[in-house]
Amino acid sequence: MSPFLAAQVADDWPPAAWRDTHVLAAVSGGADSVAMLRALHFLKQQSGGRGQLMVAHFDHRLRGGASTADAEWVGRLADSLNLPFHLGEAAGQSLASEQQARDARYRWLTDTAHQVGTRYVATGHTADDQTETILHRLLRGSGLAGLAGIPSSRPLSEVCEVVRPLLSVSRAQVESFLGDLGQDFCTDATNEHADFTRNRLRNEVLPLLREQFGPSVDDAIRRAGEQASEAQAIVRSLAEDLALAAAEVTRVNRIELQPSPFHCQPPLIAREACKLAWRAAGWPEQAMGADEWRRLLALLSTPDAAAIQLPGGVDARWVGDRVELRRT
Amino acid sequence: MSPFLAAQVADDWPPAAWRDTHVLAAVSGGADSVAMLRALHFLKQQSGGRGQLMVAHFDHRLRGGASTADAEWVGRLADSLNLPFHLGEAAGQSLASEQQARDARYRWLTDTAHQVGTRYVATGHTADDQTETILHRLLRGSGLAGLAGIPSSRPLSEVCEVVRPLLSVSRAQVESFLGDLGQDFCTDATNEHADFTRNRLRNEVLPLLREQFGPSVDDAIRRAGEQASEAQAIVRSLAEDLALAAAEVTRVNRIELQPSPFHCQPPLIAREACKLAWRAAGWPEQAMGADEWRRLLALLSTPDAAAIQLPGGVDARWVGDRVELRRT
Repeated sequence: MSPFLAAQVADDWPPAAWRDTHVLAAVSGGADSVAMLRALHFLKQQSGGRGQLMVAHFDHRLRGGASTADAEWVGRLADSLNLPFHLGEAAGQSLASEQQARDARYRWLTDTAHQVGTRYVATGHTADDQTETILHRLLRGSGLAGLAGIPSSRPLSEVCEVVRPLLSVSRAQVESFLGDLGQDFCTDATNEHADFTRNRLRNEVLPLLREQFGPSVDDAIRRAGEQASEAQAIVRSLAEDLALAAAEVTRVNRIELQPSPFHCQPPLIAREACKLAWRAAGWPEQAMGADEWRRLLALLSTPDAAAIQLPGGVDARWVGDRVELRRT
Repeated sequence: MSPFLAAQVADDWPPAAWRDTHVLAAVSGGADSVAMLRALHFLKQQSGGRGQLMVAHFDHRLRGGASTADAEWVGRLADSLNLPFHLGEAAGQSLASEQQARDARYRWLTDTAHQVGTRYVATGHTADDQTETILHRLLRGSGLAGLAGIPSSRPLSEVCEVVRPLLSVSRAQVESFLGDLGQDFCTDATNEHADFTRNRLRNEVLPLLREQFGPSVDDAIRRAGEQASEAQAIVRSLAEDLALAAAEVTRVNRIELQPSPFHCQPPLIAREACKLAWRAAGWPEQAMGADEWRRLLALLSTPDAAAIQLPGGVDARWVGDRVELRRT
C-alpha cells in the first residue's frame, strides 16, 4: 500500500489526538470517503490505542433504490475491514433540497455519535471540495466570512465534533491512492444530487481556470481562503470585545447600543459587533444587507439623528445618549 | 445629457473635495477614460471652483503609429471641451512588458502633476476593472492583500494622489452614458496590450460566471474585495503595533525580534509584523513564501531552537532572549 496519502492525513490529524477515542467515519461510498476510511484504518492499525474506528452511512433513499445498493456496498467494505457499521435511513423524511438532505445526514451522524460515544465524526471533504466551496461562496456573495471555506473541524454538539482529515488532499491524490490499493468505490451519490451551479463550477469553471492559470490556481484559492479565515477570526474577536463593551440585549426585543465605543472603530468591526447583538436578540438577519448595516452605523455616529426603520420590524432611534433598537 | 453617471461620480468623489484644486484626468481615449473626462467636465461646469481640469495622455508609441492617432484624437477632445492638454511620449524607452508600460505612464503622470501643480490625477478604472483585478489576483495567489483590489485613491507622491472616480460605475453604464451623449471614443489601447490571461479572464471566465451566477456575481466579487480590504487594514494596523513593540532594525542588515509580544498573536498578525520589519530593513521579499514565514514564526515560538537559513542570505537564530536576523 502507498502510505503517502495516509502520511499526509497523519500530519493534518495526528493519530495521537484520536487513537484513544472512538471515531465515526462518515462514508458515502464515493472515492473521497472510501479513501479517508482506508487511510484512517491504516493509521489506526499502525498506532493502536484504546479507541474504535467505526463506519457510518446515511441512505438518503433516492435514485430508486440505487442508494440502498450503495449502503450495502459500504456495509460490506466495513465488514471486510472488521469495523462496526452504522446505517441510517431517510425514511419518511422529505429531503427535497440538497440542504435538507445535508441537514438530515448531519443530524443522524450527531445522534449516532452520541449513542455510540464517539468524540469525532470524520468526513471525506478534500482540497478540491475546499477550492470549490471558497469559489462558490465568493461568487454567491458571502463576503469574507464565506471565503473562509470549510473549517478543518467544527463542533457538532458539546461532546462531539466533525473533522475533515482530507482537507489538504487533492482528488487526484485520492484516486491514485485508491488505484494503488486496488480499492473500488461507488459512484459518489453526493455528486449526483449536488446543486446545479456547484456542478458547473466543478466541471466547467474550475477546468477553465486551471487551463488559464495552471494547476496552482487551486492552491491560490485555498491560500486566500486560509488568510480570509484568519482575518475573519481576528475581526470576530475584536467585534466580540466591542459588542461586550457597547451592545446589550436589555430585554426581549430590545437592544441598547452605546455609541462612544463605536467611534474610531473600522466599519467592519462595528458592523460585526452589531450583527452579534442582533443575533443575540434572536432577530432575523437575512434581510439585513450591507446597506442596512451602513444605515444603522450612520445613525450611531450622528447624535440625535432621526429614527430609522430596519427590516424585520426593527426601529432604531436615539434615546438620551444611547441608540435603542426595538422590534415590534 | 444623462447626468446619471455624473451623479454617481459626484457621490463617490464629491466636487466639493476637488473643485478648488487642479485635477489631471488621465485619458487613453478608450470608453472608460473618455466617460470619466466628460463626467468630471460636467461636474466642474456645475460646481465651478478655483481649480482647473486638465487632460493628460501618454503615447506608448506602439501599434505602428496607431497610438499616435489616439493621442491626436484625445488632443482634439480636450480642445473641444476647452481643457488644457498634456501629451507624454514613450520615446526611447523600452516598454517590453505591460508592467513597464504602466510604470512609465504613472511616472510621467506624476511628473506632469508636479509640473502643473495638480493635487489629483484621475484615472478611468471602472467597477468591471475592479472585479477583474480582484478575481485575477485571487487566482494568481496574492492572498488577502490582493483581494483588496484597486484602491479608490492612493498617494503618487507627497503632494499628489491618484483617484478612481469611476470605481463603482460599470462598463455598461459607461457605454450607455457615452451613447446618450453621442460621444465617440477610440479603441482602448490599454485593452490591446493587456496581458493574455487577463484578457481571457474578461472575455471567457467572467461571461461564464455571469451566465451561471447571474450579473450579481460582479457585486459579490467586489463586496468580498471591500471586506478583504477592510480586514487587511485592520490586520495591518495590529501588525504595525506588534512590529513597533517587538521588532527593530538595530543596524544595517540586522533585525532583532523580541519573542514574548509575538506569543498569543494570530499567525496572520505575527507574519505581517515580520514582513514589516523585513521591508524596513530593505530585504528582498519575493523569495519569502508562506512556508518561509512559518519557519521564522516557529523559530520565534521555540526558545533556543536551532538557527535557520532564510532566502536572501538571511540567518535567524536565538541570541539570549531575542531572535536575531542577519543578512550577509
